[in-house]
Formats: sequence, structure tokens, C-alpha cells
Amino acid sequence: MAYKYVHLFSEGNGKMTSILGGKGANLAEMISLGMPVPHGFTVSTEACIQYYEGNKTISEDIVSQIKNNVRSLESTSGKKLGDYNNPLLLSVRSGARASMPGMMDTILNLGLTGACCESLAKITNNPHFAYDSYKRFIQMFADIVMGVPKHKFEEILSESKKEKSASLDTNFTAENLKEIIIKFKKLYKEETGSDFPEDPYYQLMEAIKAVFRSWDNPRANIYRRMNGIPYSWGTAVNVQIMVFGNLGENSGTGVAFSRNPSTGENELFGEYLMNAQGEDIVAGVRTPQPISHLKEAMPEVYEEFYKYAKKLEDHYTDMQDIEFTIESGKLYILQTRNGKRTAKAALKIAIDLVKEKKITEEEAILRVDPQQLDSLLHPQFNPETLKKSSSIGKGLAASPGAACGRVVFTAENAKLQNKNGEKIILVRNETSPEDIEGMLSSEGILTVMGGMTSHAAVVARGMGICCVSGCSEMKIEYKEKHFTLSNTKINEGDYISIDGSTGYIYTGKIETVPPEISGDFETLMGWADKYRRLEIRANADTPKDVAQSIKYGAQGVGLCRTEHMFFEDQKIKIIREMIVSKTENERKHALDRLFPLQKKDFKGMFIELKSLPMTIRLLDPPLHEFLPSEEEDIAEIAHEMMISTEELKSIIENLHEVNPMMGHRGCRLAVSYPEIAKMQTRAIIEAAIEVKKLNPEYDIVPEIMVPLVGDEKELKFVKNIVRQTADEIISDNNTNLIYKIGTMIEVPRAAVTADKIAQEAEFFSFGTNDLTQMTFGFSRDDISKFINAYYDRKIYEADPFKHIDEAGVGNLINLACNLGRKTNPNLKIGVCGEHGADPASIKFFDELGLNYVSCSPFRVPVARLAAAQSAVKLNKNNICAYLK
Amino acid sequence: MAYKYVHLFSEGNGKMTSILGGKGANLAEMISLGMPVPHGFTVSTEACIQYYEGNKTISEDIVSQIKNNVRSLESTSGKKLGDYNNPLLLSVRSGARASMPGMMDTILNLGLTGACCESLAKITNNPHFAYDSYKRFIQMFADIVMGVPKHKFEEILSESKKEKSASLDTNFTAENLKEIIIKFKKLYKEETGSDFPEDPYYQLMEAIKAVFRSWDNPRANIYRRMNGIPYSWGTAVNVQIMVFGNLGENSGTGVAFSRNPSTGENELFGEYLMNAQGEDIVAGVRTPQPISHLKEAMPEVYEEFYKYAKKLEDHYTDMQDIEFTIESGKLYILQTRNGKRTAKAALKIAIDLVKEKKITEEEAILRVDPQQLDSLLHPQFNPETLKKSSSIGKGLAASPGAACGRVVFTAENAKLQNKNGEKIILVRNETSPEDIEGMLSSEGILTVMGGMTSHAAVVARGMGICCVSGCSEMKIEYKEKHFTLSNTKINEGDYISIDGSTGYIYTGKIETVPPEISGDFETLMGWADKYRRLEIRANADTPKDVAQSIKYGAQGVGLCRTEHMFFEDQKIKIIREMIVSKTENERKHALDRLFPLQKKDFKGMFIELKSLPMTIRLLDPPLHEFLPSEEEDIAEIAHEMMISTEELKSIIENLHEVNPMMGHRGCRLAVSYPEIAKMQTRAIIEAAIEVKKLNPEYDIVPEIMVPLVGDEKELKFVKNIVRQTADEIISDNNTNLIYKIGTMIEVPRAAVTADKIAQEAEFFSFGTNDLTQMTFGFSRDDISKFINAYYDRKIYEADPFKHIDEAGVGNLINLACNLGRKTNPNLKIGVCGEHGADPASIKFFDELGLNYVSCSPFRVPVARLAAAQSAVKLNKNNICAYLK
Repeated sequence: MAYKYVHLFSEGNGKMTSILGGKGANLAEMISLGMPVPHGFTVSTEACIQYYEGNKTISEDIVSQIKNNVRSLESTSGKKLGDYNNPLLLSVRSGARASMPGMMDTILNLGLTGACCESLAKITNNPHFAYDSYKRFIQMFADIVMGVPKHKFEEILSESKKEKSASLDTNFTAENLKEIIIKFKKLYKEETGSDFPEDPYYQLMEAIKAVFRSWDNPRANIYRRMNGIPYSWGTAVNVQIMVFGNLGENSGTGVAFSRNPSTGENELFGEYLMNAQGEDIVAGVRTPQPISHLKEAMPEVYEEFYKYAKKLEDHYTDMQDIEFTIESGKLYILQTRNGKRTAKAALKIAIDLVKEKKITEEEAILRVDPQQLDSLLHPQFNPETLKKSSSIGKGLAASPGAACGRVVFTAENAKLQNKNGEKIILVRNETSPEDIEGMLSSEGILTVMGGMTSHAAVVARGMGICCVSGCSEMKIEYKEKHFTLSNTKINEGDYISIDGSTGYIYTGKIETVPPEISGDFETLMGWADKYRRLEIRANADTPKDVAQSIKYGAQGVGLCRTEHMFFEDQKIKIIREMIVSKTENERKHALDRLFPLQKKDFKGMFIELKSLPMTIRLLDPPLHEFLPSEEEDIAEIAHEMMISTEELKSIIENLHEVNPMMGHRGCRLAVSYPEIAKMQTRAIIEAAIEVKKLNPEYDIVPEIMVPLVGDEKELKFVKNIVRQTADEIISDNNTNLIYKIGTMIEVPRAAVTADKIAQEAEFFSFGTNDLTQMTFGFSRDDISKFINAYYDRKIYEADPFKHIDEAGVGNLINLACNLGRKTNPNLKIGVCGEHGADPASIKFFDELGLNYVSCSPFRVPVARLAAAQSAVKLNKNNICAYLK
Repeated sequence: MAYKYVHLFSEGNGKMTSILGGKGANLAEMISLGMPVPHGFTVSTEACIQYYEGNKTISEDIVSQIKNNVRSLESTSGKKLGDYNNPLLLSVRSGARASMPGMMDTILNLGLTGACCESLAKITNNPHFAYDSYKRFIQMFADIVMGVPKHKFEEILSESKKEKSASLDTNFTAENLKEIIIKFKKLYKEETGSDFPEDPYYQLMEAIKAVFRSWDNPRANIYRRMNGIPYSWGTAVNVQIMVFGNLGENSGTGVAFSRNPSTGENELFGEYLMNAQGEDIVAGVRTPQPISHLKEAMPEVYEEFYKYAKKLEDHYTDMQDIEFTIESGKLYILQTRNGKRTAKAALKIAIDLVKEKKITEEEAILRVDPQQLDSLLHPQFNPETLKKSSSIGKGLAASPGAACGRVVFTAENAKLQNKNGEKIILVRNETSPEDIEGMLSSEGILTVMGGMTSHAAVVARGMGICCVSGCSEMKIEYKEKHFTLSNTKINEGDYISIDGSTGYIYTGKIETVPPEISGDFETLMGWADKYRRLEIRANADTPKDVAQSIKYGAQGVGLCRTEHMFFEDQKIKIIREMIVSKTENERKHALDRLFPLQKKDFKGMFIELKSLPMTIRLLDPPLHEFLPSEEEDIAEIAHEMMISTEELKSIIENLHEVNPMMGHRGCRLAVSYPEIAKMQTRAIIEAAIEVKKLNPEYDIVPEIMVPLVGDEKELKFVKNIVRQTADEIISDNNTNLIYKIGTMIEVPRAAVTADKIAQEAEFFSFGTNDLTQMTFGFSRDDISKFINAYYDRKIYEADPFKHIDEAGVGNLINLACNLGRKTNPNLKIGVCGEHGADPASIKFFDELGLNYVSCSPFRVPVARLAAAQSAVKLNKNNICAYLK
């Protein structure tokens, strides 16, 4: 027997999502629950895969399976496809494994031809309905199957409205509609070169192919990339007997949620429209009624629907998003799925369901999308004001939250204006470490260049500031102090609003609403902490960051980037002095002045941390990052440093690197200038000793981390410097502070030789940003030039800087864990790259049995929840991460 | 019993080099052969390792073992250390596992004290000898053990010579020497703060420690790095009873080779000096006599020595370098070792030894250092003229050979002047691809920046042009048209000479002698080809290169870098047009014009190759490499291209990359611009078909290689483009050309996912340069800023761009081979990076069972010999590379 590619709804069930898609599986499930679902069949996702493999054709076999199933519907309904005595009409709708609302296409009223339409008018005694349905079908088929631009039909419609003085589509008379159909068919022929098809089977096959094709449309591709849905899954197609909401004033269609998707309140929430088909609700030409009105208008129908809604919610134990149609007073359910909801609603619903004893705490944990939590922790635009605003462009959603302020083009200016009480959006081609203070003074940051892990993005996320990066269509004229985007010119001082959660950029002010952490949030986080295995730490560089991190539940600092401390006014000057030093003595002199400042920072952090651990990374970036790059700044700084501009330029030139990311940085600095590592060690150890002296109850164990190690000898060399310095201070202080020395694994060679490196390291921390760059051999700063071609050609489906690349980078991480633990079974292993806050990556790290992940303070709750979800899932699958 | 760290010569044998060092083992061996070797003992290399581990002290245990052995020498000799009735005097000499001539230290006449010296004068009745010996000892001990500058002693000596009107040291009277000793001792005290030691055991222990320390002196470190000798081996110390060549006119000392080390002639070759100690021969104050004179002066001694020399040569079956001393007419052999020799001599000796049936062909193969062959294939300086020249500086020996010519600072100028018949040395800060024609017009290239794998170095080696790179002390003033080095100012047009085999730079003309390939060379290469398993291919980009490669024995082209074809005048213009194209059509138009030119190049290469294979790499470098970087050039080229300077600048700026090595290059270009890959495929396939049509007997199977692949989908995408293009042409031509598509493994991710990549690839070629860069995470362009610190701190002992890093990069290569062959057991695997010509790396690749290595044409003989050596060694160790 041939392989089954087409399944009647009555042959399926709710668990068959991978073959039937979510919609198809739920339709099957509802049928088995005895709900009033119009019958139909699902062309499986496997047929879609075959369609693409077969050079975009549907095989004979599948065509014949479809035809057999149509015949089955014919016998169920007593109608016949294309029979103008009693025509069977069908809807054709997409339905992928994962819900992708609005991404793919739907065709209604399929099966109508000129003759069928006439007969339908007669049978129903409702010519208006028949012509309305045919008109709709022609328009949808032309648009979706043949790609005739929608607006051309809309133009005909609005002309007709003018002509007939009809304010709404529903005002057209049957005669009007008939005329419109003629015009539509004419347009169809003009645009496609052929007559509108009269063969219903041809219509059906073309419609199914169009739905398959819509799997590969740009918005679907982008949606999948954003949501980590594999292209290879394909979509199913659901072919269902039409029921009609446009059959008159006794008919209608609607969408409702079993609970309120904004607030989570346990109340039916939704809209409906009488004498309409599904698309009318979305189109917004007529205003739908709230579902509560149905209670008054059609109390029995409402009661029946309410009962089904509750039944479906209980069945799926989650809030449902349900589509329904009322045909001449009879209710049909057309679709149900778990409803999309706001973060606030997600929390409330999950917790309420636990209270109602419908789900367990573990299940509740799985019900909230960790990514969504972001919106609870950052300001958001007032949704009402936002609706009225139109965006002028879009960049990458680099750091969540919404911000509004005056445009400023330099960090300097941002600082100044902010002191004057202005709210600032800093707009730059890109940011660099010297901009940090200005960034801190801004509400939001907008850049032309740079991806999700550019300097601007990383720093903004760390600070919890909103950032839109990589808006490459924007052109800044620094000298003229303006920028242009979509032909709009924005001057310095003008207000703009940016949304770091969506990437959109708006002109003018949009009101923001502050974040609000509810009791539900605390409850769910409590459960998350109860079930997760992975420790969550934060990347924090200042006492303020540390406090914020702990507030959000971090169990320590996983990465303190010491260089971030260097960008305040006084320190940056000393750092620059150090860099231009010609002798070791000059350098030591500068370091001696830096020492008390750095020690003070560490003390502040140890005080905040009390007994929580902190991993401190020794100086990492290439030194040229601390020097200015703009002509004017060079002159100014040279003057400050009392050297000639020429001299400073020549120093900068000398430090120039062809590939700075692979240059003189990381532990290579400590190897060249051990005095820097010594100073930093001294600052860490003295700070720890002094804080412990005043607070003997604190259990302070500094973890000193050597970056960019590629060879065990390299680590050994730097370790010896650190050990000697630390042990001397400890013994001079007659105390017995314990400290640890470990390394970052961020160079492929370190992963490959991790067994040897583990001989010298007490802990590993994966620097997944750099490891990703070097494993792929591309620089995140340069990837924008070709990455879109890679997405377009489906070579990459996800951003490896966002989700860990399991096959490549992940493989090296796995290797390094195994090799490292072979040498030292107690090796503590964590992750401190951007991936530490990505739920999919967190699950991967959990499976590898890592000890912790570390992420920016504002992502800590996301990571806590993601780690809990991972633990629940692993537990469910009986996978013991420890023993894998 | 305590572990044995000290071995009497009579307790050892010639195989114990790892413990006794080469010298110690050979001394032991000679004793067992019954040769007149003064007795002594060896402090083992293990003791040296212990010395360094023990914080530079000799353990009690080893001190007592040394003392016991001294007592043994005392009883053998009947003399006693420090006994002024009959003092035992000793020599203390270094001796590592591998011969490191002149790198470490020697102390003679140890054991002398004031009193012993007086008694020695009496016993020998030769006060001159006694004082001479004591004087020498003080000087050596002060220099080597205490670090007192030598020249301070020399000053005393030359003053004394003036005072006493003595022209030579030997002219001093005993009285003179006594005065000098007093002055020496005074100087010693001034410099060291203590009296010259009178305790012979103290002298001995300090001398042994000094020899241990000399293992770590800068010249030894550099020598080891050059020769791949591990620091961890340590050196042994040989303590030997002194025999005296300075006992009068009946005494003397000399060095001789059992065959001529310059020519390989089978004749005793060497020098000696009467009434002298070893150091005098090297010092050059007195002129030594050729060894042949000894035959007349002391025929019996000569005969005896001749007999020993032959016996030693026969014993070691190799040419020996022998040190001897004649004490009062009696011959002593002090050292023997395999003699260093020129390449020419090495060949002759190896082949003669086979003819003499003393060694097998396999052994002969092992006797010639592959690296040395270089000198046979490139011009060299006339050694006589060279002796008279003094260098003004040194860079990296980047491409072998010697060259002399007028200084020119631009590639343009080099081309021009060369057309006028001038010989040119092109001097640049660095070179870039646009300089290629100028480089081709030069005799040699000298650069300030760049390492062994910089553009200048790689291109020069490929072309067989001499190159000295990375001479960072040189300062070029392009505008003033001169450069300075060691305070010497060289103007454009001045003659300089550079030696790419040593890195030295000389002012003025030094005569060069052309390379000369002898019959011996052909003989040895024939044997090499007979025994090696690895195939040797060449990296060649032009028909001329191909011809050269085949002449040197290449079995095909392993890497044809298509972009190297693009730098000739006409082509570079079209390439630039392509780059500035704004639309795909404009780009295609430029490519259409490039196509016939590229096809012509491929045809030329296929014709030269006949049936030999060729791997052609699709366009690899980032496009900005083809655009000018200097202000003037930009203006000129913009004019040529008929666009504004501003526009060209903006295009260049747009193409700018932060980390170009990790940017838009390799197959990323083909993914973005498939039309480039199409054009190149068309050129390759049409060229192959046309050449085959005219020469049906040629077996042409083009191997098309996709560079920088990191994901199998990436390769699949490009492969599909290539396949479609190629198959269409083949079918249009009604022919059936076979071609292969493979990839470079040069990104760590490709190595880690090689099993998947092998699903799409018919062959792998390791791009070890890039793989090394990305595995270590450092850029070869930037490494110079920190690599010396790494050498100084012994973190690295070898340049990973020269010798493959087995533990890291090698591990990934091994992994990729295993994964790749798991998927496709017939996968053809080669190497086309710089390591393809490095003998140590070749052995590693041979062990992994790779199919071939590919290197620059001039290195092909080196690779052939190295591959043969590897095969012989693997065979000897019963390692079957295939089955590992």
C-alpha cells in the first residue's frame, strides 16, 4: 500500500502534530472529543517535504490520495465538488507543527465556479451570499495562488463603493457583487493571461501548492529564524468543508480566548462579527463586537461556545485561542490552539492553573516563554500610543525595552545633555568602549552598524538600556548633526522613540510605561529555582551591576570584565598613560596609580556579593581599544598626556592590528606585561582580604580568570604570576584567603587541548562569543556583509551568536568538558558568553552537565526560568544530565 | 640505591644520547672502541632537568655522585684534584642530545689554583705552560661562570702585548704571564667582589652549573627554535681529564673531518695548531695549518689519526667531525660527531657511502637534511665575497636564495627599472596583491613587516624569489626615497644584497653564484621517489609555475589560487570593475570579460600538466584586497574606472572589514555572488574540454575546490552551482569530462563537522595556514607584537606557522581525517598550506595517512625527500601509516 500522505480528521489525533501540523492535529482531536467541527482532511507535512524535494510538484500518488479524501468528504456531506446542483465548498489552510500565526496563507470558498455560484444562489436562496463568497474566493485565489497584487482588487472595490454609494462591502447588492465579479475576472485575466479556473480540482491542487509555497515566503522564513523553527519541518495543509459566516444576519464568525490574553483573567475574551468570513475580523473595515455581546445576541450559541471553550481549555490544560463560525444559527468550531499571551498573562494563567490543580508546578514552568520575561523587566511603550505611531525603520532588537528621548550624536554630548536633565537617545555608526559613560547617560542607543553581539548591544544589555543596532539603512551626517532614515531627516535634539524588543524606530515621543514585577513573577521564579539544576550567575562589572544581579536572583558573578572599570574619566587617563609608557618602570608607575581605584571597585563588589562567588577576568581587550580613534580626540588626548599629536598617532599606529580580534589581547597581554596581571591580582586579593576583615562572616573566594588561553603553558605562566603575587599578600596579611585560578575556553585550541589545560585550571568558563567566531572563522563585526545571503539560501537558519551552534561550537564545548573532566573530575564549568541567556542554548549546556551559566543582570530571570524548563524536560525524558 | 645521574665514560655507550648527550655517548663509544680518549664522566641530561626543576641548584645527591666520579678519575690518573703535588686538571664541556655547535660553553684547565699552578710549572718543568693554562682558566671561568665581560681581559692582554712588544700570546714569557695572572685576578675581584676561587670542587660545581645555565642562553634558545630541539631535553656535561696541546712545540690541537664537508670528497680535511688549546683555532689570532701539513710534520701522529678517522667513519657509517689534541707527541681524541656539511657534500657523501656499500639507499635518504636542498635550487652568495661583507641588519629568512640589486620602493618602479635592464631589490613596509608584477620583476624582496607567512613571504617562495621579511628595525621614508637600518641610510638606486636563506642584509654588491643541480641530486631524488608514499604536488598559479613544478618533480598541482591570476594589468582592471558593480548584471558583464582571460590561463596550465591532476580553488580573498589602499592610487584608479574618487573611496570604505581574515571571503563570496563561481567553473571546464579535444591522450580531471567551508550546506550550495554550470557545458559539448568537487578544511568548524562535510566533498585539502590562525585565535599578521614574549617565556618553542602544531591543529586535522573517512573511505586528503613543505609536518601528515602534500614549486624537492625520510622512518618503526 502506498504511504499515507493524506489523513481524514477522523483518522488523526492531537499527538500527531509532526505529521498533521498543530491545526490539523487539533481538528482531529476536537472531532474525537465530539465537537462540531466541519469535516475535512489534512495533507501532511511529509507531503510538503516531498513537494519541495520533487521540484515543487505534487506527486501523482499524493494527488490521488487527495482526490480520494475529497470523495470521502463528498459522501459525508452529500455535496459534490464542482457539482452545480449541490456544490461542495472547501477551505484550504496552512498548519505547521509550531504555530506561526499570520505567516502563511488561507483560501476560503474553494470549489466555486460561475455555474456553482449561480446554483448556490438558488439553493440558499441568498444570491448576495453566493456572489459575496465567489468574489472573496476570486480575490484570495488570485492573490495567494497567482500573486496578483491585492491592491488592484481593492481599487475595483473602492471604485464600486463610490459608484454605488456603498460605505461597506456588506452594503453591496447582489447585483453590485455580480458586476464586481466580472471586473475581478477581467483583472484576473489581464494579470495572469488566463481565465479564472473553472475546474475545482485544479483550484484545489493549486491552492494546496500555494500553501506549501507560503512555507517559504519571506515573512515565514524570518519568523522561523526568530523562533528557532526548522525549515525542514514543512507545513501541513488542512482542507475542510466550508461553513459560512456570511450567510446572513443569523450567521457570523469570531475568535475568542478562554482567558484574557492580556491580563490572564479567567474570563472569555474575544470578538465576533455577524454576516462575515474570518478575514473580515482581521481586515478591520467593520468593527467586531466583543464576545460578551454574543451572550445577549445569541444566548444559546454563546452558552454552547462557552462550554466548548472550557472543555478545550480543560482538555489541553491551557488557555485556548478558538476560531468559530455560526452558520444560520449553528455553531462550528474551526480551530483551537494554545493562545499567545502577554508575559503578565502567561504568569497569571500558569499560576492560576496550578491553583486550580489543573497542572503541576513543573508544567507551569514550561508554560511561560522565558524570552517574554524581558518585557516585564524593561519599560515598554504604552500600547495605545504605540498603535497611533508609525515606524520609520527597523534595526536589530539588540537590547530590550522601549525608550524615548532627544537625538544626540556623541557620547560626550549625551553626558552633558543628560546632566541638564534631558532624556537622550545616543545615535552612532557604532559605539566603542570610550563611549561607555555617554551610553550610561542615555535612555537608548541606536546604531547603524553591529549585530546582536556588537559593542553597543553587549554593553546596553549589560546595563539594561534599550538598544537598536545594525540599522544599516540609516545614514548619519555627524558634521551636519542629522541622520536620515526612510527619507525622514532627524536633527540633533529631535525626539525619537526606539523599541529594543522589536527593533522599530519611531519619530517623536511615545509614552513608555515602567516595568512592574508582580507577585506572580516572584511565585514562578520561586518554582523555577526549586526545579533547576544549573546555577545562574550574572556578568557584572560594578557594585551597582552586582546589586541589580542579586535582586534578579543571580547566584554570583560569572564574569567581571575588569576593563569595563577603566572607562571612567580618571581611570581612562591612567590607562592611556600606561599604554604609552616606554619602559616597564613607567608602566608600573601608571599601574600603581590605577591600583587603588581598581581595588576600590572590587571592594564594592565583594561587599554587595557577601558570600556569593565572583569570577574576575584579567584585562582582555587589545590596548588600542583604550586609545582614541578620531583625529580631534587624538589631538585633545595628546595635549592632556603632554605628548605631541604625532607621537600619540605613531603609538596608535604601532598598536594597530590587521585582525584585532586575533591580536595582542587576552592572556597575551599578561604574558607581555606581567605587571598588569600583578596589579590586578593585588587589587583583587587586597580587596577581598579587607572586606573579609570587616565582615568575617562573608565567605569570599575570588575566582581569577585568565582569558584567551590556547596552551597550558600560557596559563601556567600567568597562573604563576597570580599565585606569587596573591600568596605574598596573603602571607603578609597573616590570613588564609582561598582563591581559585581558572581560564576561559574561547579559542578552539583550548577546547582541543582541554585535558592539558585542566591540569592548570581550577575552573573553565566558555567564552562562547569568541569561540563561535573562531570556530566558524567569521568575525561578528563583519558578518553582516554576507549573513543575509546565508539566510536567504537556507544555509543558516539561526544566528549562531544567539543560539549555540550545537554541531560545531557545541561539539567543541562537549569535547572540552569531557577532556577537562577527565583530568579533573571536580572542574567547575560555566558559560559566560551571550549564549548564557538563550533558552535553547541553556538546555544544551544543561545536558552537558555544566555547573552554571552567566548572563547580563537583566537576563538573569530569563536564564533561571530557561534552566528550570530544561531541568523539567530532561527529567521528563529520564535523562540525567550529570551522568550522560 | 640512588638514581644514577653521573656516568663514567666506561659505563656508557653510543646509544645513550638521550641521557649522556651526543658528545658523552660518543666519548663512551670511543672508549669501548679502544681509542685514546682521556677518561672522564658525564653528568646526565636528567641532572640538568633536575637542576632547572630544583630552582637552579644541584642536589646533594648529584654533588656526591660527581665527587665519587672525580675520585674514580683520580685513581685512574694517579693525580688528585687540588693536590699541588700532582694536580688533576679537568675540562668541563656541554653536550646535548642534538649537536648544537658553538651554542653552549666549555671550560678548560679546571682545578688550577695558585699553588697547583706553581707545582704544575715545577712538575712539567714548563712554567710557560702552567701559567698559560692558569691564565686561560681564569679568563674562561670569569667569563662563563661569573659573567665578567671578556673584553676586559682582552684589554689587559693587548696592553701587556704593547708593553712587552709581544705580537702573539705565545710570545709572552712565563714572567709576563705571571704578571697577567695577577692583573686578571685583580680584575676578577673588582668585577665579582670576591677572590678567584681556590677550591677546585667549588670551581667544578660552579662550572657544571654554568654549563647547565648555558642551555638557556639566548643563542641556544634561538638555535633550538630554528632546529626544532625541545627545551625540555636539557644538556649533559662532560668532565674529562685534561690533555694539553699547549705543552710546547711537540703539542697541539686540531679539528678534522673524515671527508671534505664542502665538497664531500673522500679526503681528510681539517686544521691544527701547535702549542695551543682548542679555543685558539676558533679565535683566529694565529692561523691554523691544514691537516695535510701534519702528515709531514708528525707522520706517525698523522697516520694514527687517519686510521682513527676512518675507523670512526666506518663505525658510525657517516662523515665524522673529530677534535684531537697532541700532548707531547701523543695523540688523544677528544670528540667525534657526525659532521655538518653543505648540501652538495651531503648528497655526495650519502651517495658515495651507498656506492661503498656502507649504507643502504634508505639510510642515504635519511642522511640529507631536506631543508638544505633549498640552497641547491637558489642562487647563493659567493662565499669568498660574502666573508668580506658585513651585514647591516637581519630579518626573517622568508624565501631562500641570495640576491643583489638596486633599491626601489614601489612595485611600479620595480617593473619600470627592470624593463630598463636593472636588477632590483623591492623594499616595502609590506606587500599586497597589487604588487605582484613588481615583485616578479625583482631579484629579491625586503619588507619591514610580516612574518614567514606574510604576503611577501608566501608569494616570493611561490615564485622562487629571495625574500627577507619582518626586518622591523628598518625605517622606510617613502617620500624621501630612502631607508635607514643600523644607522646606515640607503637611497633609492643604491645597491644592496639580501640573503633569504639567512635573513641577512648587506650594503653594496655581493656576487651570487647560480644554482647547480648535480647528478647526485637526481640520484638521491630518484631514491626518495622510490621509497616515499606521500604524493607531492605544487602550489602553482600560472603555466610557468606549473612547468617549474613538474621540473622539480611535482605530481600535480595541489593548489591553484585563481586570484593570483587576476593581478596582471588587464585583469585587475576588470576585477575592479566587477567589485564596484552595483547590480548583478553589471557584475556579470565584468565577469564575461574576465572569462576568456581566465580560461586561457587554465588552458595553459592543463597543457603543461598533461595528465597530472590540478586542484583549483575558487576565488578566496576578500574583494577589498583587489582595490588600492593608498590615496594616490585611489585617485588614479577612480579616474581609470571613470567614477569619482569619492565614490571609489566610499566603495572601499564599505568593503572595509574589522577582521578581514574572518570576513567576507572564501566560499562566502560564492554564496553572495554565485555568478563568480559560475564564471570560474565555466573557465575551468571549457579549458579542460578544449585541451582534451586537441590532446585526447591527456587524462584531465579538474578538481574544483571550494575554500573556507564551515558547514556542509554551504558546500552543497556552491557545489550545486558548480555542478549545474559544469554539467551543462559538458553536455553542450557532447563530451564526458570527469571533474571532482572538494573543499578546503581551514576553519575549525569544518574539522569538527568533517563527517557531514564529507557527504558533499570528493576531496579535502587542509589549509593549514588559516586553520592554524583560527585554532590558536591569532592572526599571522599581528603575531609579531607578542610572539617574542612567548618564545622568551618558553611558552612556544616553535613557530606554529612553520611546524604544524600537533597537539592542537594536528588534533583537529586528525579528527577531520577520521570523520571524513568514516563517511567516505575513499576521500582524497591533502595539505596545501605552508606546512606542506616542512619536513617535521610532512612526517606528521604521513603518519595520518594523508594522500598528498602540496607546496611551492621550489620546495617540491624538499618535500619529496622529507616524505621519503618519513616513509623510511615509519617503515623502520613498523608503523603502517595506512592502517593507523
